[in-house]
This record gives sequence, structure tokens and C-alpha cells, in this order.
Amino acid sequence: MNDPISHTPTLDKVSGPADLKALTDAELTALAGELRRETIDVVSKTGGHLGSSLGVVELTVAIHAVFNTPLDKLIWDVGHQCYPHKILTGRRDRMLTLRQAGGLSGFTKRAESEYDPFGAAHSSTSISAALGFAVGREMGMPVGDTIAVIGDGAITAGMAYEAMNHAGHLKTRMFVILNDNDMSIAPPVGALQRYFNDIAVKGPLATLKAVAEGVEAHLPGAVRDGARRARQMVTGMPGGATLFEEFGFTYIGPVDGHDMPQLLATLRAARARATGPVLIHAVTVKGKGYAPAEGADDKYHGVAKFDVATGAQVKSKSNAPSYTAVFGQKLTEEAARDPRIVGITAAMPGGTGLDVMARRFPARVFDVGIAEQHGVTFAAGLAASGMKPFCAIYSSFLQRGYDQIVHDVALQNLPVRFAIDRAGLVGQDGATHAGAFDVAFLANLPNMTVMACGDEAELCHMIATAVAHDSGPIAFRYPRGEGRGVEMPERGTALPIGKGRVLKQGSDVALLSFGAHLSEVLAAADLLEAEGISVTVADARFAKPLDHALIDTLIADHQALITVEQGSTGGFGALVLHYLAGSGQLELGRAIRTMVLPDQFIDQAAPAQMYDWAGLSARDIATTAQGALRREAAGKGLRLV
Amino acid sequence: MNDPISHTPTLDKVSGPADLKALTDAELTALAGELRRETIDVVSKTGGHLGSSLGVVELTVAIHAVFNTPLDKLIWDVGHQCYPHKILTGRRDRMLTLRQAGGLSGFTKRAESEYDPFGAAHSSTSISAALGFAVGREMGMPVGDTIAVIGDGAITAGMAYEAMNHAGHLKTRMFVILNDNDMSIAPPVGALQRYFNDIAVKGPLATLKAVAEGVEAHLPGAVRDGARRARQMVTGMPGGATLFEEFGFTYIGPVDGHDMPQLLATLRAARARATGPVLIHAVTVKGKGYAPAEGADDKYHGVAKFDVATGAQVKSKSNAPSYTAVFGQKLTEEAARDPRIVGITAAMPGGTGLDVMARRFPARVFDVGIAEQHGVTFAAGLAASGMKPFCAIYSSFLQRGYDQIVHDVALQNLPVRFAIDRAGLVGQDGATHAGAFDVAFLANLPNMTVMACGDEAELCHMIATAVAHDSGPIAFRYPRGEGRGVEMPERGTALPIGKGRVLKQGSDVALLSFGAHLSEVLAAADLLEAEGISVTVADARFAKPLDHALIDTLIADHQALITVEQGSTGGFGALVLHYLAGSGQLELGRAIRTMVLPDQFIDQAAPAQMYDWAGLSARDIATTAQGALRREAAGKGLRLV
Repeated sequence: MNDPISHTPTLDKVSGPADLKALTDAELTALAGELRRETIDVVSKTGGHLGSSLGVVELTVAIHAVFNTPLDKLIWDVGHQCYPHKILTGRRDRMLTLRQAGGLSGFTKRAESEYDPFGAAHSSTSISAALGFAVGREMGMPVGDTIAVIGDGAITAGMAYEAMNHAGHLKTRMFVILNDNDMSIAPPVGALQRYFNDIAVKGPLATLKAVAEGVEAHLPGAVRDGARRARQMVTGMPGGATLFEEFGFTYIGPVDGHDMPQLLATLRAARARATGPVLIHAVTVKGKGYAPAEGADDKYHGVAKFDVATGAQVKSKSNAPSYTAVFGQKLTEEAARDPRIVGITAAMPGGTGLDVMARRFPARVFDVGIAEQHGVTFAAGLAASGMKPFCAIYSSFLQRGYDQIVHDVALQNLPVRFAIDRAGLVGQDGATHAGAFDVAFLANLPNMTVMACGDEAELCHMIATAVAHDSGPIAFRYPRGEGRGVEMPERGTALPIGKGRVLKQGSDVALLSFGAHLSEVLAAADLLEAEGISVTVADARFAKPLDHALIDTLIADHQALITVEQGSTGGFGALVLHYLAGSGQLELGRAIRTMVLPDQFIDQAAPAQMYDWAGLSARDIATTAQGALRREAAGKGLRLV
Repeated sequence: MNDPISHTPTLDKVSGPADLKALTDAELTALAGELRRETIDVVSKTGGHLGSSLGVVELTVAIHAVFNTPLDKLIWDVGHQCYPHKILTGRRDRMLTLRQAGGLSGFTKRAESEYDPFGAAHSSTSISAALGFAVGREMGMPVGDTIAVIGDGAITAGMAYEAMNHAGHLKTRMFVILNDNDMSIAPPVGALQRYFNDIAVKGPLATLKAVAEGVEAHLPGAVRDGARRARQMVTGMPGGATLFEEFGFTYIGPVDGHDMPQLLATLRAARARATGPVLIHAVTVKGKGYAPAEGADDKYHGVAKFDVATGAQVKSKSNAPSYTAVFGQKLTEEAARDPRIVGITAAMPGGTGLDVMARRFPARVFDVGIAEQHGVTFAAGLAASGMKPFCAIYSSFLQRGYDQIVHDVALQNLPVRFAIDRAGLVGQDGATHAGAFDVAFLANLPNMTVMACGDEAELCHMIATAVAHDSGPIAFRYPRGEGRGVEMPERGTALPIGKGRVLKQGSDVALLSFGAHLSEVLAAADLLEAEGISVTVADARFAKPLDHALIDTLIADHQALITVEQGSTGGFGALVLHYLAGSGQLELGRAIRTMVLPDQFIDQAAPAQMYDWAGLSARDIATTAQGALRREAAGKGLRLV
């Protein structure tokens, strides 16, 4: 980075945010340019969340220049826009390890840096956390200012509303920066820039807004209209107060989030004068400053490695359709046959595959926004009216709608279908996105049916099963990524509820798989058989209701039973154990092992590597089976090998 | 009810909502008066939620008179204000069974009546459900209009905000009635009543509001000021649009929720003319029409049986302090010693006992409103700043903050303390309030420590343990109701993490209790010992980390192990089984039973009755232990008895 002719001469002088204090405003502007180029360069080599990071380059520089991190707590909502922040806060030399095993997280993370005071990955938590820090400061904790940076999507979640409501009530000094990149008109730069340049030398903030409104009124027509339209988009009405002001926040904006002098002036004034909660409304452009990103529909939200000159992404070739694609396609086909089917997504139409159905049946797919709580109960209302709602939510995000699943769906036995993508470990997004707990939090609910598919053909059948199952709620889980490449049925067939299947019949040990780890279970069977052990492989299909007859047979006919799932304790394996205990089969002294995710959060890596760390590789399964057989034999006074 | 001289002549003519169509407006007013008296009379004999039911008597009559339930879907948010609704909808003759075993639920409930299209008990779900029904209607389902009645507290929850946001976006016709009983000024009855009388014959709703505003401007001073102040309390500013209008709702109000002609006119006009979502803002008085309720601080929110003439409640005498009271008192004492302790409640300061601490340290208790999501992450922010937050939330409501517990607390290993009241079955509030799942959804989270207290003295020690445990999150659960009457320590002592205790040493069977069912476990031991069986009783104290040494000893030294808990599958018993499987101890062939709540939602009754239904009485425990011993003996070719 200290080339004779560096492309990043300003950035090279910055080893941490403190160094920004020595730079002039012009140098900070130059720094932002270099930071943008370096971010593009890094992500071209690693892949990752490019668009959102490019949108906050100037904000990142301005916040670190004006505030005193890490004493001041800067909290990035969601955290996927943090790459420039990581470069500036001592992690520049590790950026090429981004989202890789042993490398930097793709999100903010407390364990990684003191400049990440509150990690994220799920949306809309930042204001709550920032308020907690602010109240801690008022109570004497070593905290300076608190700054939450939150996007225009994330701020619409109920949780953010709850936090603003509370912050306005407490009147504690804190800063929320609304990073608004959904604004369809350009901010009125010329006029408001003058205003914000003035802001540092005028009266208290609360009255400055009125000054700004006065300024607006005296602007020439076109600029004034732009300023007014911008304000109206936020306030919802001409001349009215913003929603944020109703909450008790002082509102400043809109400000051009890529205009460094304007940002610096605004933040300096806000920092100097705020007494209570302040909302700064910054308008930004996702993908800003990189033409291929700005020109793309998705603004390069998440990208693979790419060629910087052309923007062409290096997509890896797939061998089998992804589970998500199978879900999108097969649900759409079912929807064509059954007009009662509707889809519900919480701001993830593309990620869940519901965009496929939305293209064909736009009136039958509902994007409720980042609102899992509402989404689940909305689905319950639809089900109560007679519809067949498919609520497609990632496993880890479904945690947001847990009470609604219990209280509105399961307790009322309403036939909501939960399509749970990203079940199990998910790769580069790491621990925050792991779908570890869904089986445990769903399969103990009365009335609930819980399935997991062993391959993509099974997913087709489970979609068909969910369509047919109209007597209560039903969930089916499937992982991120490609299927196993099995032959696909033309159309799924409804499975008998609570019945598993035997894929391979043996006699020594039974491997009972639940879900997409079936491929590893089959590989483990091959390893065991190579060592002369006769293996039965069964696919439970259902965690609830359990296939008691299948379990009875496996216990009766084998020395050992190993359950395998891509989930935590308390899930499928636990239910098998509860059943065996209750039915008096533990007295048989069989060796039983429940292979689940370990009691730790597992950092990002390739999924296979993560499962290896988790002790769930095919080799681990085989070793566990061998150990169980030896123990069981020892218990009988025999030795198997 | 057909006395020669009935006190309820109009009500006697009503067997269902259809009969209201034949009544004149004057008769509907009379009906409301009779309905109020009958509601008071019923609750005086049963106890229950009186204040909120009295607040909606006129609303109940007006809605059923104007709309066509059950085709039109009337959804009461929370549902505890539904007693007048139940009287009018065919359940009058069962009202004296309210909240009792085999009787009517204290909330709305689908299984109970077709007039309860969507049950409730947790707050803020009604708008989501009503929107689901409305969309179902648009898609051809047999649904008429949908009406959500939601209180001014419930509507502040993030979930309600998410639902209104979505409803405004969809523009689907639906009605939300804001039942606002927190307004400190009287509504401007005289002026607005004339307006609402006019409303049925004038133009479309959207313009009627403007007319109303025009009417306001021409009113005499005092009345006009009242109308304006009322509007400003809703809009937050003079002349501005309401929050609801920003969402896309047509706003009507405020209207006097106890003025039958005004209500009828408003609802008729709204029903006749609405094309999209409409919000009707009704101002009501909690406890309306019953002086002792109106005069009480809590407006008789929830009452015991009482004397109608005096309002004096028949409080049952307690033998021991309630767990809630112990928590409130002991946490306050700890807070006096440790200034870092703060309390967080989600709109339940009294129910959680945090009101005790708030009286002594008002600045250190935070009521975040009905906002469990925010509350948990706010606590995480406080913990990250160095504070010691105690997040006191009922078990079933903590489900609302589940993702925040996973993502913001456990994953970051932040020392938030969760004080979980109402764990286990709760009595008259029934299945919706059961604290069945908290152990299952908490104890599989990495970094989390989970305790349950066997008695009220243990609760003191667990509070002290939580104060001392600053290295990660910790939760402790305790039930509704009285403690066991054990001697209380002056001050709690921090327990060693992950260590249980043995209360009684025996040799045949080990009963391993987790939590407040310890009293039943001890009673079961007495039953067993009376039959000559030697019993060990242990109190695990911790579900996570488990006391492996204790479990090893219990397995080694007994023929059978029975775990007992007031929770679902996947919780403490499951973790014991996982451990025994993983450590190869199932090969010993011991008889093991995990006694948990059954796979069904259990309706209201006395808690002891509910546990009896659940198969968790002392007798059930003893029987299970005997069965396990017999099986184990049979497995050995022996017979114990």
C-alpha cells in the first residue's frame, strides 16, 4: 500500500479514525474517492455487498471525521454496508479475507473490532442499540455519542418504530442517520448546501429547521420546488412535520449523502448543538461512483467476484438447481392449479424465489416489507379466510415472527404454510444468518407439522404436501445452495403425513437423517460399509409428527441409532429421544447418538467447512456410528471390531 | 333471565347480533345500558377484565348493529374487552363460567364461536389479521367487511405499525377502530356529534374530514378549542394530517365512544362509503359507567370477584409471597447496592413487579411500551455500555423478542438478564398466556445460561446469581402465583453456575426437577416412599449449563431417572437426553422419562387442574416413576413388585 506511486495517497496516511482529525475537508473528500476505489477493488476480488457499501463512502468518512469513535458508538444497521468502515478502522490489510474462513465478517462484529460496538446482520436493530448505549452514557458508562445509520427499508420495520417512539419519549441525545437511497428525485443540493454550510454558526438545531424552510421559500423556482418535493416525500404532506418530529426527534434534511462539505457541516452542527434525539436524513445512491453498479437493477447489492473494468461478475457454474429456484418454480406451478395459493415475503422476493411467482401472478404475492411479525399474522388472517398462504421466510428471519407463529398460527391451528429457506449453515453470511433453531422452535408447537427435505425432489413433494395439508400449519425447511442433482419429478406428490422412508437397508447401525444433510449421511454410509459395517439409511422427512413405526423398527433391528440434522439441540434428535424415553425403549440399552449443530455460533466459511467445524462431516458421522457400535458391544460384553 | 320484571328487557330480546337489526337507535342505547349492567354483574361473580369491557359496551352494540357479523369479521385486539361481545353473540347463558375450567375463555377464541373469527390475548395482532381477511375477501373468500378494534396502547406496538403500513400500501377496504381511553381531555361532543349526524348524507368520507375541519373553524370558542386540542393530540401538530393518513388510512374522529347515536352514524357512514382502509378514532373511558371502576387507578383492569354496591373486591388470602413480589422486592434491594442495575419492562411494570423498583429508583426502570423487540435490543445496548439490565418479560410475551435474544444478545454474548415471570401454566388466562416454550427456545442458544427456581428462596439466589454473572446472558424463570412458603434469605447468594442440588438422597429412582414443579416432585417422592420405593430428589437449577456430574451420579446410582419441568419438549429434559446420548450412558439401559407439558394447548382452569390435565400431578410423577422402575426391572429379567 506504500507503492512509489500510490493510487491511495490519502488513505495510506490513515491507520485509524483518529488520523482523520488531521485532514482538511478537501483531503477528506479526496479520501472518500480513494476509499470508494479501494472498496470496489476489494469486492471485485472477494465478492460481497458492494452497492450498499458504495452508497455510504462519504457518510463513513464524515462520521469518523466528526465523531470520536470508538468512544462514540457508531452502529451500522444490518451492517452489510460496513466495508469502507472496516478499511478505515484498522482492518484494511485484511479486507481480502472478507467473508472467508478465518477472515473478516461481512457484517459488523463486536469480536472483530472496538470500532464495531454492536454487531448486526438482521435489520432494524441499530436505533434500539444506540439508545441503550446513550442511556448507559447518561448513567455514567464510558460512552460518548451514539450514532445509528439505518436505511430507508430498515427504518420501516416495527422494531425501528418502537425504538424511535421510545427515544423520542426519553429525549436522550442520540443521532439517527437515515441513509435514504430510495428517493427518486435528486436532492436540492445547491440551496440546501448553502444552508448546511451556515448551520454551524446559527442558533439551536430546533430552530434551524425553520430557518431552512425560510430559505426554501426564497429560492428560485426550480430549486425551491425540488427542495419542497424532497421534503414532502419525507413528511407525506406539504408543510407538515415529519414522522420523526412526531416521535420527538429533531429532523434535519434532506442532505446530499455524497457531498462531503455538506455532510461535514451538518454533522458538525448536529454534534455541537443536539440536546435530544436527532434524525439526519441523508440521500444517497446505492452503488454510487461505480457505473456498472449504478446501472444495474440490483445496484450490485450482493455480487460475486467481478472485473472492475467491465463489471462482469464471475458466476460459478451450478451442477444442480438451487433449492430456492426449485421452490419458486414449483410453487408457481402449484399456484397455477390452485387459485387459493398466495405467497408472502418479508422484503425478500428474490432471495426466497417468490419473484418467480410474482411475475406470473403479481396480485398473489405480498411483499409486506421488513415486517416478519405482521407477515406471519397477515398469513394467519388469510388462512382463516380460506386462502392457502405460503409464508416464505429464511430460517433466521423467521425468528422475528416466532410469537405470531405460536399465538396466531399454531394455537388457532390455522393452515399457514412456512417455506423456510436458508435452513442450516449458510456459508459466507456466517453465524447471524445460520438457520439453526427453526426445528427446535417449531416442532414443539402443538398442531404444527414440520418437514425437512433430503433433496430437491423431496422439496417438490413437500410443496405439494403443504398445498394439500389444509387442516393445520405446516413447515418445510431446505438449505441455501444447490440441490443434489437428483432427478426431478414433473410434479410433486403429497407425502403421507408423519411417514419417513428407508433409502438403504442394513443391519448393524441405523442412520436416521432429517433434512438436507442426507447427502452426507449417505456418504457416511459408504464409509462405514467400506469398513464392513451394514448400514440402514432412513430419511425421517417429518420431525413432527414423528414416524414412530419407523423409529421402533430402527431401534429393534439395529445395535445403534444415529440421528443427523442441520440444526440445534432441542430439534429432531430431541424429539426422537423424548419418544424413545416415553415409550420405554431406552431400557433396551441401544447406543443412540443425536448429531446436531454444536453449542457455538459458527463463523463464515464454505458450508462444507462450517459443517466440518460443526462435527457433522460424513467422516464425523461414520466415526460417531463406529464409536456407538463399539460402546453398545462393550455394554454386552462383546467387541464388534 | 325472563323474570316477570326483567332488568334487561331489551337484552332479553337479543339472542344474537341479527336481532339488533330490528332495534331502533333508542333501543340500541337502552341495550347498551343493560349490557353494561349485566357485564358488571357477571364479572362481580367471576372476576376478570372489567375495565376494558365496560369501555367498549357502546362500541360493541354499535358494531354489531351496523355490520353483519359473523360474515363481517370483527376482531378485538388482545380480546380481554370481549365480555359484552360474548353476551351479545350467543354466550350469555355461559358467562358465569368465564375463565373457569370447561367454561368460556377470557379472550376471543375461534373454537368458541363463529363470532370470534380470530382469537387473541397477546396484543397488536388485530390489524394484521383483519388485513388478511380483507385480502381473502378480495380473492373471493366468503368474507364481508373486516373490523379491527385496537386500543391506544396496542396500536403503538411495532407490529401494528407494520400492519398499517401494509394496509395503506394495499389500499384494501377495511376498518380499524382505535379505542382510545388514554385521552386526558373530553372529546368535543356537541360540535362533532352534529357533524357525525350529518355524515351519512354527505359526500365521500375522504372529503368529509375536510368538512369537519371547516365545521370546527366556525364553532364557538370553547368548543372549537376542545375539538382542535383533541385533533392535535392525535396529529401531533396543529392542522397536520394524522399519522394514520400518512399511512394511507382515511381518518375519522375523534368520536365519543359512549355516544350511541354518534357511533351509529359514524359507523353507518363509514360502512356505506369506505373504499380503502379507514381509521375511526373513538374516545372511551375505561371502566365507564361503574363508579368504583372509573374512580380506581387501574380502572378495574383485572379484578377478583367484587360487591357490586361497593366495588369491594374479594381478595383471596395468600399464604406465601408471590414470586412476582419477591422479584420486585429483591431486585430493588440489589439495585440499591449496585448502581449498574436497571430494569426494563414492556408495558407491564405492575405485572412484573418492576413497579416496586420504579418507585424507589424511577430513573432506572424503563417501560418501553408494548415493544418486546425493541426492549430486548435496548437491553443489549445497555449491557454493551456496561450496565446490568434486567429485562423482565412474561414467558409468553418474551416470544416477541426471540430473534433479538438470538441475534443481539446471545450471538454477541452480552450480559442481559432475563427475568421470566409466568413460566409454566398460568391459570385463568389459559393457553395464550402459558409459559411453555421459554426453556426450549433459550437453552439451545450458545452463550446463554438458563435457570429455573424451585421455590421463592431460590428466586432470591437466582437474582443474586444474575447480578453477579457479567460474562454473558442469563435467564431465570419462575411461575405465576405464590411461592411455597419457605424461609426467605435476608439476601440472595450467587449460585455456582451449572450446579444443581440434591434435596433428598435415595437409591431406587431419581427425580430430577427443573423449576417450580419441585413441590409436586417432593410430593411424588412422598407417595413413592409410602410404597417402599427409595427416592432421590434433585433440583437441577440450571438447564444450561447442565450439571453433568449430578446427572452422571443419578444415572449411576439409580434404576430410573425422571426429569420433571413446567415446559415443552425440547427443553430441560431434552438437554438431559442429548447429554446422556452423547456421553454413551443410554447404553446402560436405564429407564428414563422426561415429564414435560403435553403436545397440546391447555385451556384455562386452576393451575393445579391444568397440570393434572397435563399429566404432571404428583400422582402422575409417582406413577411414571413406578412404571419406569418396573420396565427397567423387566429388562433385567427381574420384577421389582
